[in-house]
Amino acid sequence: MKKNRWPIIIVTGLIVVLAGAVIALLVFIKNQPEPVRGVVPMITVADMEPDSSIWGQNFPNQYTTMLQTKYNNERTPYGGSENFSKLEADPRLVTLFAGYPFSKGYDEDRGHEYALEDVKSSVRISNATTGTCYSCKSADNPKLWAEMGLEAFDSTKFSELGKSLTHTIGCSNCHEANTMRLIVTNPSLVKAFESQGIDWTKFTRQEMRSVVCANCHVEYYMVGEGKLLTLPWENGTGIDQIAAYYTEEGFTDWTHPQSGASLIKMQHPDFELYSAGSTHYNAGVACADCHMPYTRDGSAKFSTHDIKSPLLRLPETCGVCHTNVDYVAERVQIIQDSVYQTMIKAEDAIIAAITAIEEAEKQSPVDQALIDEARELHRQAQLRWDFIAAENSMGFHNPEEALRILADAIDLARQAQTQAILAGK
Amino acid sequence: MKKNRWPIIIVTGLIVVLAGAVIALLVFIKNQPEPVRGVVPMITVADMEPDSSIWGQNFPNQYTTMLQTKYNNERTPYGGSENFSKLEADPRLVTLFAGYPFSKGYDEDRGHEYALEDVKSSVRISNATTGTCYSCKSADNPKLWAEMGLEAFDSTKFSELGKSLTHTIGCSNCHEANTMRLIVTNPSLVKAFESQGIDWTKFTRQEMRSVVCANCHVEYYMVGEGKLLTLPWENGTGIDQIAAYYTEEGFTDWTHPQSGASLIKMQHPDFELYSAGSTHYNAGVACADCHMPYTRDGSAKFSTHDIKSPLLRLPETCGVCHTNVDYVAERVQIIQDSVYQTMIKAEDAIIAAITAIEEAEKQSPVDQALIDEARELHRQAQLRWDFIAAENSMGFHNPEEALRILADAIDLARQAQTQAILAGK
Repeated sequence: MKKNRWPIIIVTGLIVVLAGAVIALLVFIKNQPEPVRGVVPMITVADMEPDSSIWGQNFPNQYTTMLQTKYNNERTPYGGSENFSKLEADPRLVTLFAGYPFSKGYDEDRGHEYALEDVKSSVRISNATTGTCYSCKSADNPKLWAEMGLEAFDSTKFSELGKSLTHTIGCSNCHEANTMRLIVTNPSLVKAFESQGIDWTKFTRQEMRSVVCANCHVEYYMVGEGKLLTLPWENGTGIDQIAAYYTEEGFTDWTHPQSGASLIKMQHPDFELYSAGSTHYNAGVACADCHMPYTRDGSAKFSTHDIKSPLLRLPETCGVCHTNVDYVAERVQIIQDSVYQTMIKAEDAIIAAITAIEEAEKQSPVDQALIDEARELHRQAQLRWDFIAAENSMGFHNPEEALRILADAIDLARQAQTQAILAGK
Repeated sequence: MKKNRWPIIIVTGLIVVLAGAVIALLVFIKNQPEPVRGVVPMITVADMEPDSSIWGQNFPNQYTTMLQTKYNNERTPYGGSENFSKLEADPRLVTLFAGYPFSKGYDEDRGHEYALEDVKSSVRISNATTGTCYSCKSADNPKLWAEMGLEAFDSTKFSELGKSLTHTIGCSNCHEANTMRLIVTNPSLVKAFESQGIDWTKFTRQEMRSVVCANCHVEYYMVGEGKLLTLPWENGTGIDQIAAYYTEEGFTDWTHPQSGASLIKMQHPDFELYSAGSTHYNAGVACADCHMPYTRDGSAKFSTHDIKSPLLRLPETCGVCHTNVDYVAERVQIIQDSVYQTMIKAEDAIIAAITAIEEAEKQSPVDQALIDEARELHRQAQLRWDFIAAENSMGFHNPEEALRILADAIDLARQAQTQAILAGK
C-alpha cells in the first residue's frame, strides 16, 4: 500500500518554521534596549543648555513657575521683590557707601527673571566693570565657564561679555541636564569648598537644596586685575573668620572719602548667616523648604520655582511645620523689628565714627597712630554691619547671630569714634 | 360570728411605725451636709498658714518635692542653684557695682529652701537694712503683711523683723489655703498690676502659672524713708518703659564713686524679660511648664515643686514639646553663648565709660554739661546691661530682646565714654 507522505512533510515544515520564529523572537527580545526608568523625558537636553524653555518641555511645572518670578514682585515689611530704592528708604546708606557705586544706586533685587535685565541697566556698571558682575545673572554662565575658563570670563569687559549673555538665571545654574541632579555650577564655590576641605559631591540631596543657593547667595570679592570671583571662606564662613581672612589678604573694596578707612562691601551672605548655627539650619531645614515650597499639580508634587519671600505665602511655607501661621507671622515681625532697630543704631554709630575721623584729620597736631586705629575699627564695624544689612532676611535667617554681630558692629564703631576724638585731642 | 381583730391592729400598727421610720430617714437624709467634692483634704489649713509642713499633710507630693530644693543645687553653664561667687567668676562686677553692697558679695541664689537662711547671712545686710529685704524670702510674709500692713513690714529694722520670720519660701507665697488657688500674695505686685489697669483675678490658671512667679521674680525698688517695696511698672514692663519710669521718679539706688553717675541696681527681672514678647511666652508656655514640670506618683499627676533650671532635667521639661532634647540643649547653648559674649562686651564698654568719666573729672577746665551727659548715659547703659545680667536665664527667656537690650547698652556706654573724653578736651 502506497502511503500518502504529504501530511508528515507539512507538519515537519510547520514545526521548523515555528521553531525558527520562536528563536527569532527571543533574539529580538534579548536585543531590545533597557527600558527607561522613572519619568520618560520628552526630549534630551544638551549639557549646560542655557535655554530654560528647552528644559521646560520636560518639566513644565518647574519651568512655568520659574517664569512667575517676573510677576507679583511684592514688598514685605523689610524686603520682598519690589525694586524700591534702599538709598531713599534709608539715606544713611549714602554716607556709609560714599565713594563707592552703592551710594549712587542700590535697589532691592527683583525676581530671578529680571536678574540679567537689571544688572545690564544698573547704574553701578562702568567702563571698568568686568564679566565678574555677570557671575550670578545668567544661565549662559555654566557653558561659558566651561568653554572660556573662569579667568577669561571674569576679565572680559562687562559690555563685551554681555553680548554672549541672553538668558537670565535658569535651570542650568543649579541642575545637571537630564539627570536633574542638584549641582554646584559656580567654579568659585567649588574652590571655596575645596579651600575648607569639603567635597560638595558628598552632600545629601536635602543639603544640596541649600547649597545650590550658595552658587550665588554668598559673600564674594574680586581678586587682582583679572577680577577673579573668589569666596572669602578659607578660614570658615562666620563673619569673624571672613573678617580675619580679608585682613590676612590685605583686601579692600574701596577707601571711604571722609574717614579714609579701607572698606569691604558685603554681598548677600544669605548662606553664611543661615548656616552659622541658626535654629532652622541646624534642624535640617533647607533654603528650598521655605523659598520653594512643595506644591501640587494634580497628583504630581513639585517644588515651586517661583522663588520669593516665605512671608508672601505663609500657609505653604511656615505652615508645613508650624500649625499657627498667625503666631509665626507675629514672631517674624518681632524678630525683624528688633534687628532693624539695632541695625539703624549700628548705622548711626558708624556715621558718628566717620564724622569723628573726618574732624580729627583737620586737627593739628594729630596722633596718626590713633587715626589708623580708628580707621581699622571703622572697617571692622562696617563689614559686620553690612553682613547683616546686605543679607536678605532682616536677620530672620539667624536672629541671635544677626543681633550678636550688630552689637559687635556698634561696639567697634563707637570705639572708632573714641579713638578719632583722642587722636585730635 | 365574733371576728378576731388582732391581725388588723398589728398590721395597722406596723404600717404606722414603718411610715414614721421612712419619714424620719428622709428627714435625716435631707439634713445631711453637702458632700465634699474633689479630693477630700486630710485637714483644714488656716488662712495664710506659714508652716508648709501643715499644707504638706494634704499635699505630700508637692510638699516633699519642694523640700528637694535643699539638695542637688547643681550648676549649669551660666547659672543653676550652686551659690558660686559671681564676683569671682567675673571680676568686672566689682568695678560695675563699686560703692554698692553688690561689689562686696554677690552669690548665685540657691534653691527656695535656702532663701531665708541665705538672706539672713548675706554680707549685703547692714544696720540700715529694713524688712523690705525679707519681701521674697518667707512664707510668714502674707500673714504679716495682713496683720502689720506693708508699710510697717517694710520700715521695721531687718534684724527686728527677722525674729518673726522662721519659715522659708513656702505654700502660702503662691496659694490660697484649702482651695489651693494660685494667687498674687505680694501687695506690691497687686499695686503694680493696678497701676497698669490690670485686675489679676481675671487671669486664667495657665496665666497664673507664670504670674505667681512674679510675686518675687521681678525688678523692684524701695520708695522713701520707709523703704516701701514698689515695682516700676507704671509705664509698662519693658526695659525702656522701666528706664523712663525711673527717670520720671528721679530714683537712684546709689552713686558710682568713680563716674559720679546715679545708678539703678536691677533685681532678677525674669517675669518682665520673659513676657516681653518671647517666643515661649507668646506661645502660652508658663514659667511652671519649664521650671515645675508635671511628674507622676502612681496614677496622680502633679507639678514638681523642686523648682530649678530646666537644663537639669531636659526630658521632663523641653522634651514635653520638643522631640529632640539633644538639639534643644545645643540650641540653648548657642543662644546663651551669644548672649554671654555680648554681655561681657557691654561690661567692658561700661567700664571704659567709667574710666573715661573719672579721667575727665581730673581735667581742668572741664565741660560739666558733657560730664553730666556722660553720667546719664552711664546710668542708661548700666541699667540695661544689668536688666540682662541680673536676669536668671543668660538671655534664654527672650534671646532677641536680651541681645537687642545689650546692643543698646553697648551703644550708650560707648557714647558715655565719648562724651567724657570730649568733656575733658
